[in-house]
Amino acid sequence: MRITTVSYRNKHHIAIQESDSCWAVSPQPANLGDALATGEVETLLEQSDSWSRAGLDELAFLAPIPYPRRNIICLGMNYAEHAEESLRAKGRELELPEYPVLFTKATTAVIGPYSDIVLDEQVTQQLDWEVELALIIGKGGRYIAKERAFDHIFGYTVVNDLSARDLQFRHKQFFLGKSMDGSCPMGPWITTADQLHDPHNLTVRSYVNDQLKQDGNTRDMVFRIPEIIATLANVMTLQAGDIIATGTPSGVGFARQPPEYLQPGDITRCYIEGLGEIANRIVSA
Amino acid sequence: MRITTVSYRNKHHIAIQESDSCWAVSPQPANLGDALATGEVETLLEQSDSWSRAGLDELAFLAPIPYPRRNIICLGMNYAEHAEESLRAKGRELELPEYPVLFTKATTAVIGPYSDIVLDEQVTQQLDWEVELALIIGKGGRYIAKERAFDHIFGYTVVNDLSARDLQFRHKQFFLGKSMDGSCPMGPWITTADQLHDPHNLTVRSYVNDQLKQDGNTRDMVFRIPEIIATLANVMTLQAGDIIATGTPSGVGFARQPPEYLQPGDITRCYIEGLGEIANRIVSA
Repeated sequence: MRITTVSYRNKHHIAIQESDSCWAVSPQPANLGDALATGEVETLLEQSDSWSRAGLDELAFLAPIPYPRRNIICLGMNYAEHAEESLRAKGRELELPEYPVLFTKATTAVIGPYSDIVLDEQVTQQLDWEVELALIIGKGGRYIAKERAFDHIFGYTVVNDLSARDLQFRHKQFFLGKSMDGSCPMGPWITTADQLHDPHNLTVRSYVNDQLKQDGNTRDMVFRIPEIIATLANVMTLQAGDIIATGTPSGVGFARQPPEYLQPGDITRCYIEGLGEIANRIVSA
Repeated sequence: MRITTVSYRNKHHIAIQESDSCWAVSPQPANLGDALATGEVETLLEQSDSWSRAGLDELAFLAPIPYPRRNIICLGMNYAEHAEESLRAKGRELELPEYPVLFTKATTAVIGPYSDIVLDEQVTQQLDWEVELALIIGKGGRYIAKERAFDHIFGYTVVNDLSARDLQFRHKQFFLGKSMDGSCPMGPWITTADQLHDPHNLTVRSYVNDQLKQDGNTRDMVFRIPEIIATLANVMTLQAGDIIATGTPSGVGFARQPPEYLQPGDITRCYIEGLGEIANRIVSA
């Protein structure tokens, strides 16, 4: 199932894809994040046969979870070639992380799959792209064994973990440089876990102005999904609706020679096999 | 005003201190975090004359904001002597941060001012204390000038930013080591901003089993509150109910010779002048 949150007749609703051109829309205003967090999503979905049908021209796609209940959890340096390019760009030796590098993005960074990204050049002059497979927790818990990790996943989506590199490195810890308003486009929808044969065999690509920038595969993650979930849940209780972005492959801007950063007018596209593509234009503040 | 969230007759209510032994309790179940986030807090407080009165024996104090809407934002190395002891313990030269070091703690880390902290020695063997002045945003916004920063503060409270040092350093970024369930005791209440003459002239102390461990003053912050708020709001929209912990003075466990960590049975106390004291016992998982 493809499921997300849409704007329909000026209200937010949960929507399920019926066909390429038709979506079923929840009768009452709702958003998928709250429905996951409260556990109401199952009851809602049971009644989806009776939902109204809407064409694409009647819908605007929001982020599937437009108002996360807490920060997006992200992995850093979780693809070997990206770890290598990052350390090389900083003049350091390649050293793969022994443990997952975990940080968060602010909830207010989330925008829709086709929304504009507002770039204030007084805030950052080094805005960079990072396509990532993100998973959405469906069933929370603590002490989740690796073997049970996939039971806790509701589905998957595409995230662009946009990064203000000047802020990210200046402030040492990554939080601020990863949390700019608009720096977390997400979508185009959530593909539920049952639809994805193997999340560790997916092509992951990003483009800037139709030029291919990143071209990886989720098989190359250093820490795979079961280990990520088990590592987090060993320490903290995961909650339904949590979003975990699993890291980016090589090809980001700051590690290029010379470095490349996003400019007003650029369009970033992030694609993951089976999950779809998001596309966001950079606009001046 | 001292205001917080309490458990009263098995439901959560907002409560305001009337006297040392008497609190006014909101007629409807509510919690202060949601009331701040939705903006309902002002309307609620206008009616507080008619709230019921309850004695201390009828109340259990929760964290003032028991379920934050997003992660707690924290500063690292924001007191010079603490930055020095931390770097010395890691064998590095003293270098004060040029920019605020910002990271987050998971919402599920929050516990009440007198709640037990569950220590699972399979998870961490290096649990450490950090008393901190935390501020609560009352009015959100982006691009908040330093000169206007105090207008955005609802009040202040005491936080113990408990840190699993083994996890914190192993995972490089601080998030996981700072996010253990129970690692963010908070309270005993929020003191509203109008009651605090100068948040930059407050004694800050922590104790373990009545032994003084940290003894600082908020005047020694490297980055002061207006700069912290302006730095954050330059990049991301702050929201009412956001919690920002402003860093800890020197005297933490891992920097001691030899290092000291919390053990089951220990009681940590965190005190800030004018704001009160929280006290939490470490118990085995």
